[in-house]
Amino acid sequence: MAAELLALYGYWRSSAAYRVRIALNLKGLAYEARPVHLLRDGGEQHAPAYRALNPQQMIPCLRDGERVITQSVAIIEYLEEMHPEPPLLPADARSRARVRALALAVACDIHPLGNLRVLQYLQAGLGADDAQKLAWSRHWIEAGFDALEALLASNSATGRYCHGDLPGLADACLVPQVYNALRWQLSMERWPTIARIHAACNELEAFQQAAPERQPDAP
Amino acid sequence: MAAELLALYGYWRSSAAYRVRIALNLKGLAYEARPVHLLRDGGEQHAPAYRALNPQQMIPCLRDGERVITQSVAIIEYLEEMHPEPPLLPADARSRARVRALALAVACDIHPLGNLRVLQYLQAGLGADDAQKLAWSRHWIEAGFDALEALLASNSATGRYCHGDLPGLADACLVPQVYNALRWQLSMERWPTIARIHAACNELEAFQQAAPERQPDAP
Repeated sequence: MAAELLALYGYWRSSAAYRVRIALNLKGLAYEARPVHLLRDGGEQHAPAYRALNPQQMIPCLRDGERVITQSVAIIEYLEEMHPEPPLLPADARSRARVRALALAVACDIHPLGNLRVLQYLQAGLGADDAQKLAWSRHWIEAGFDALEALLASNSATGRYCHGDLPGLADACLVPQVYNALRWQLSMERWPTIARIHAACNELEAFQQAAPERQPDAP
Repeated sequence: MAAELLALYGYWRSSAAYRVRIALNLKGLAYEARPVHLLRDGGEQHAPAYRALNPQQMIPCLRDGERVITQSVAIIEYLEEMHPEPPLLPADARSRARVRALALAVACDIHPLGNLRVLQYLQAGLGADDAQKLAWSRHWIEAGFDALEALLASNSATGRYCHGDLPGLADACLVPQVYNALRWQLSMERWPTIARIHAACNELEAFQQAAPERQPDAP
């Protein structure tokens, strides 16, 4: 029996799903895209069919045969363990920790604050208007990118990509966050190292094909 | 020359530092506590001495000889790679992914929204009063714990702890988040599985000794 294709449940503009698409492409893994529309009908992620798959009712989630894996960073670590080549983490523990820390500086310290559900709460619960929501989104990206720029620029392990000259987990998290920054009209001039790495990544087919606009559910 | 002691830069009440203390204790690793006071003098994490160690100006960070590791989850993964016994992650890729996903459901989806800097912005930038800040903190814990409870209660891999009958990475993230929930006077009755695991963890010396009130910088 032929191996079942991996299936990625995601949304074109979700930056967590975008990370996983990059990782799948970097590893050359074919997968089936299963779009989950976050806005239609109150959010398809809350519908019973998806809820049965992921009780957390969030995307992305990856189906590998009978296995269902959630959380983008956990999914990428899983792919790394199941399909080690090409590696998305370096070989030694110190460098692996550095790459994971860079990835989590995006995944824990920037991205959660700009999520759709958070902006919805700011509006409904605290009466924030569009300008205040935009200022909020920009503020956390700016604070996070200031920190990331310092981490990247101050360390000689930074190369063409976040760590050395091979793209990996940290780049897979960084590029979707830059996509969001540009969406909120932030100028990347303030963060030259991030901007340079972003440009280098986007020269690669794996990153280009993962871009939101290239997804089947993009409008 | 004797090996230098690990040094953990943290703050008694930081739930990210609390996670790392649990992991160090579970592994039986001795370490030196280096308190960084997040509120004194505009935040000691912004002072030049700490900034040189961690340009991100956040805690915790772990010093292992010349190595500086940041981000609590990356620190715990590093400890796991350097000191594999006792393991904080299961052996097989599927189970490892589950434990990481549970940990990240706290570290990405709950904790970042309740951080001090976020509450400060809500007040200064959006004029939120104390009641609104409390409602905010509770809201994200409730949403996150509803999701976690569903993930834990629906899966037969959940045991005495988040995954099976050995405490690990997911428990190290969960227990500090329950500490925060109790601090905001949330009743844990709504989440019986989380409450049960929390109680089981706190029977262990490793968790007890990591508690905020037991730290040298606790008031």
